[in-house]
Amino acid sequence: MSMTGTEREKDAAVVPLRWVGPIKITGNVVDEPIEVPLATYESPLWPSVARGAKITRRCDRGVVCTLVDERMTRSVLLEADDAGAALAAVRRLGDAMGEMRRIVADCSRYAELLDVRHQIAGNLLFVRFEFATGDASGHNMATLAADALLAYLVRVFPGLRYESVSGNFCTDKKASAVNGILGRGKNVVTELLIPRAVVANDLHTTARRVAALNVRKNLIGTSLAGGIRSANAHYANMLLAVYLATGQDAANIVEGSQGITHAEDRDGDLYFSCTLPNIIVGTVGNGKGLDFAAANLARLGCGADRATGENARRLAVVTAAAVLCGELSLLAAQTNAGELMRTHLNFERPPSDREN
Amino acid sequence: MSMTGTEREKDAAVVPLRWVGPIKITGNVVDEPIEVPLATYESPLWPSVARGAKITRRCDRGVVCTLVDERMTRSVLLEADDAGAALAAVRRLGDAMGEMRRIVADCSRYAELLDVRHQIAGNLLFVRFEFATGDASGHNMATLAADALLAYLVRVFPGLRYESVSGNFCTDKKASAVNGILGRGKNVVTELLIPRAVVANDLHTTARRVAALNVRKNLIGTSLAGGIRSANAHYANMLLAVYLATGQDAANIVEGSQGITHAEDRDGDLYFSCTLPNIIVGTVGNGKGLDFAAANLARLGCGADRATGENARRLAVVTAAAVLCGELSLLAAQTNAGELMRTHLNFERPPSDREN
Amino acid sequence: MSMTGTEREKDAAVVPLRWVGPIKITGNVVDEPIEVPLATYESPLWPSVARGAKITRRCDRGVVCTLVDERMTRSVLLEADDAGAALAAVRRLGDAMGEMRRIVADCSRYAELLDVRHQIAGNLLFVRFEFATGDASGHNMATLAADALLAYLVRVFPGLRYESVSGNFCTDKKASAVNGILGRGKNVVTELLIPRAVVANDLHTTARRVAALNVRKNLIGTSLAGGIRSANAHYANMLLAVYLATGQDAANIVEGSQGITHAEDRDGDLYFSCTLPNIIVGTVGNGKGLDFAAANLARLGCGADRATGENARRLAVVTAAAVLCGELSLLAAQTNAGELMRTHLNFERPPSDREN
Amino acid sequence: MSMTGTEREKDAAVVPLRWVGPIKITGNVVDEPIEVPLATYESPLWPSVARGAKITRRCDRGVVCTLVDERMTRSVLLEADDAGAALAAVRRLGDAMGEMRRIVADCSRYAELLDVRHQIAGNLLFVRFEFATGDASGHNMATLAADALLAYLVRVFPGLRYESVSGNFCTDKKASAVNGILGRGKNVVTELLIPRAVVANDLHTTARRVAALNVRKNLIGTSLAGGIRSANAHYANMLLAVYLATGQDAANIVEGSQGITHAEDRDGDLYFSCTLPNIIVGTVGNGKGLDFAAANLARLGCGADRATGENARRLAVVTAAAVLCGELSLLAAQTNAGELMRTHLNFERPPSDREN
Repeated sequence: MSMTGTEREKDAAVVPLRWVGPIKITGNVVDEPIEVPLATYESPLWPSVARGAKITRRCDRGVVCTLVDERMTRSVLLEADDAGAALAAVRRLGDAMGEMRRIVADCSRYAELLDVRHQIAGNLLFVRFEFATGDASGHNMATLAADALLAYLVRVFPGLRYESVSGNFCTDKKASAVNGILGRGKNVVTELLIPRAVVANDLHTTARRVAALNVRKNLIGTSLAGGIRSANAHYANMLLAVYLATGQDAANIVEGSQGITHAEDRDGDLYFSCTLPNIIVGTVGNGKGLDFAAANLARLGCGADRATGENARRLAVVTAAAVLCGELSLLAAQTNAGELMRTHLNFERPPSDREN
Repeated sequence: MSMTGTEREKDAAVVPLRWVGPIKITGNVVDEPIEVPLATYESPLWPSVARGAKITRRCDRGVVCTLVDERMTRSVLLEADDAGAALAAVRRLGDAMGEMRRIVADCSRYAELLDVRHQIAGNLLFVRFEFATGDASGHNMATLAADALLAYLVRVFPGLRYESVSGNFCTDKKASAVNGILGRGKNVVTELLIPRAVVANDLHTTARRVAALNVRKNLIGTSLAGGIRSANAHYANMLLAVYLATGQDAANIVEGSQGITHAEDRDGDLYFSCTLPNIIVGTVGNGKGLDFAAANLARLGCGADRATGENARRLAVVTAAAVLCGELSLLAAQTNAGELMRTHLNFERPPSDREN
Repeated sequence: MSMTGTEREKDAAVVPLRWVGPIKITGNVVDEPIEVPLATYESPLWPSVARGAKITRRCDRGVVCTLVDERMTRSVLLEADDAGAALAAVRRLGDAMGEMRRIVADCSRYAELLDVRHQIAGNLLFVRFEFATGDASGHNMATLAADALLAYLVRVFPGLRYESVSGNFCTDKKASAVNGILGRGKNVVTELLIPRAVVANDLHTTARRVAALNVRKNLIGTSLAGGIRSANAHYANMLLAVYLATGQDAANIVEGSQGITHAEDRDGDLYFSCTLPNIIVGTVGNGKGLDFAAANLARLGCGADRATGENARRLAVVTAAAVLCGELSLLAAQTNAGELMRTHLNFERPPSDREN
Repeated sequence: MSMTGTEREKDAAVVPLRWVGPIKITGNVVDEPIEVPLATYESPLWPSVARGAKITRRCDRGVVCTLVDERMTRSVLLEADDAGAALAAVRRLGDAMGEMRRIVADCSRYAELLDVRHQIAGNLLFVRFEFATGDASGHNMATLAADALLAYLVRVFPGLRYESVSGNFCTDKKASAVNGILGRGKNVVTELLIPRAVVANDLHTTARRVAALNVRKNLIGTSLAGGIRSANAHYANMLLAVYLATGQDAANIVEGSQGITHAEDRDGDLYFSCTLPNIIVGTVGNGKGLDFAAANLARLGCGADRATGENARRLAVVTAAAVLCGELSLLAAQTNAGELMRTHLNFERPPSDREN
């Protein structure tokens, strides 16, 4: 899927990209400093994440990234004769797990059926399949498997009919609560403990002010806005930049944007965490074969010959770490009147005029 | 902000782009067929939107696009002595409108203060400013103006203190209800009335099945998922592709993804509408000066010498029309078992192997 | 907990109550016509539900009520050293199920631990316990068991500390998505197939108009309002009336109000369903021992000597059926301009002036 | 609407009621200590609120209650020829305000049209009317006025047709975001500043622990649960008890339950606030004429001969103060392991065995 230079001229959106960092990362997946590529039209994002990355290098353990869960989902939709027929089918799903696992395994050697959840509404049955999908983000693998599972359900359970291979209880690229509650994509918690002196010298603020702002803006402000499972300033910005740089389907920033920033003043040190339950990335599949994407994945160490799934986990963790860097930097800036605007005005001069 | 070819090789994400259409558009902003550029790593999106565009050309009025509203917002956050002090300030905001309008006008000749809304929670005061921002999407213009307004509020109202230039009641790039209810970005309703024969021959389905699927999947399925002000299949995909192709800050697909598809079976004809209350686009500002973006905007007719705001409105309407095309195509496909997967497998062959 | 007549004069809210029906009920729990008691200050509710009940008696199978699930929940909140410590604990929960079941069984002979779900956010761990609770709604039983389980978790898992016996991920009497997605209370689906003639003669409308109104008002209107897992007109009214009449903790109408009405025009017949995932009722416990409540439960047949849990299931199904009756009646009325207001004005004359 | 003793025996739910307090209240509506009546089947609520009330009496200013806003709403639903017709009507609403105000004034001498908001989705138009309704909660007054306004809209605007007098964008008794964002009912902020010694001696905790628990449980926990505009522990309990005791339509606790608790550790003193944007109470109308309700309203000082609206405002403020008392008491209890359960077990003995 590579393109010649000429094709690129005509037939591409060329999104400026910079590497920032390294971010000092530890935790249950990665233990090393890593630079991250950020592709964006919003140039102030680079120095913002870079500032956060610098902070991580001054903290003892760096950003501790804990991968909590991973799965890709697809919810099929069936029309039942009535709720009773739907319930009868649901009650037999447990017994059918063995057969359904086989069906999924036949669809792809990387797909594995992890769990099944359902909802009945009137005569409608939504069955949400959860899959392991190796190093792929897994949308297509999940849809292919769901297609086969749906055909199976219609075949073996009386009173069920095909309605749709996707019933929006999945849910893909929509703002909802289900993905956070049941899981979709990689769930990564990032934590950083910043010494008081670093907070003062590098972030020009205090732990108390950051923690208070997080409560007032991210938690209370978002709640007032009618936010859903969301308490952060701008996860979407960093997610978009990493996703574009690595060939991901960046529309998944919709659910990715839903995560929770939690900060605590610990006797002047700042505990700062970003919980990202829905990071959806892969190191194989659509987009990853484009020249620049493959090169970027390789430089990230996500193209290496590892056990299945390890490259994607590494990428998820690096993505999450970049999110924390940008979130920390912005929140700290907003504790000081006028700082955000001054920074933006400064950095939106043509990038060639400035240092990274 | 243009880049040399060499820089581009190294320092960019190169997102494959195709023009599809033309989409036949009518309504209160545009009345002509227009091709749209879609930049995406997900190649099946091109034929999907192209199919929808073809349908529009077979409908009498094409996609009727109605621009309903436009504004950009920023909510500042103040700490008050108590709720009483916050309320006292709020009650004087009406009298202060003249002065606040002058402050905004001084910030930019394109910015205009349209309205002010607020929330009080305990001792916290959130003031949400709504601006007209000309042809810019307006994030920076709004932040700059909000900064000045915030300083003004702190100066003239006793008992108020700076807390943050953004209090998340804006809300930018987060999944919430406020943007749809109070307005943020351009609110565009798109409608298409498809004759029964076109539904049958080109979409291979019926109006009744599409309308039923929309209720079951987009409305009920999303509700079950805990969706918020959202009832659609995949607006985010089309928004991302147009945003990237035209130099927009694509992280705004988060709120953009929240919109409502409504379909009706009208005696066999299909009434199909997509309501997009939060399209956030501009034709000037960050990203639009990149060579490809400027070229694409020009080809769209959005770089012309028009009255202020007209280019951005045109772009919003074209974006919305593209969303309808992709949404219609996917929903119609999902009414037929297996069609979605067959289409994906077919179109994910290397693009060079196929016709558009 | 009975009161003398004199105490009642002084120390009670006396909510007018009427029995309406019978409602013809079938399904997997009840198969008989049952009258329901409705205690309310809003007298128009009685004729509204009564009209619905009359409709059920004219339908072949009556209201088919399918009990889909039942459980009561409590989510404890723990502070962990960090997300890693929280994850380590979570990964051992599976092995601990046996011991946790024993702990629960020791708390009450009616309580049984069904399942455990969790959420990690930064250094916070929320563990949501799901219990069977016999004929009790189970709030106290669940809290008592959660208290013991929390002590156990703190004791055996290093790095966890008590934060709260309730972490709002339960969630009790708050509007959220979790109760519908993971289950809380009794999940009952009610369905009624109304012949075309009955729709015309008794509801003065058509299936097509009711189905269209349900889409436009309950589904689209609620979505626009930023509703969460909710698509109905007024479930809360009927729930409140039955809850008060039977000694329930009526504050649970908050989550009870979140359910989905789905209607279909089936060649002129009207398929009408109400899905109520969070009915929280018991036949023993606080309030049920009050004279009138005990009498009402007895008349409902919910005080009989049945297998554990059967009385509460019966009550849940009757409650759900009453909800459908009121929902159907209101929606049908709203299809006709002016009917709702005329009905209200008519029925708010003193009840003694009218027939039931 | 009074009932004889005999009728009451048979035809009523008799909800035990106690007066607790007095609560020391100050602010822009009330400045005196007031006892509140709580009708509930959950007897532990009485001592819980009573403990909070005691705390208020030890605080300098007591509970400062600030009434921020008041309005009742009803959203009608119209079918338009298309979005263009809907927009054309909307653009003329401003000019029609004078005529619409007259229509409303003709419906009731207490009703006044305050504002109009709208939503367009496809061919559907939702118009949300906001009214002042004097001392009534205003549901019926609003519906009556909306009915007349709807007829007017259909009459004067071409291309609009009646769909429903209520389109769920109101929204009544449903969990949503709109009521908090646009306002519905009385918006009351309550604040209490509790000296460090009182926190220690009477609440057996510290300001730091209460503030931390509020963040972790009410803000983060609720967000994880997919809560909507809600961050509290149990507002619904207190609202239900006051509503029942004063003849309110208690189903309005659904939206009433959506409010935000905010607490701060101020050098050891505890700032504790509850923001309740949707208190829906009246002192006239359905239920208020029942003997006990009238007596309770009179004892509350809400039956006095005051300026229109003053009695209802007083009742709203007292209600909000009672909510703060119960919320404070529960949160403080949950900071101590086991305290909640011990308290419940203690207080669920028959009330006659204990002191209040």
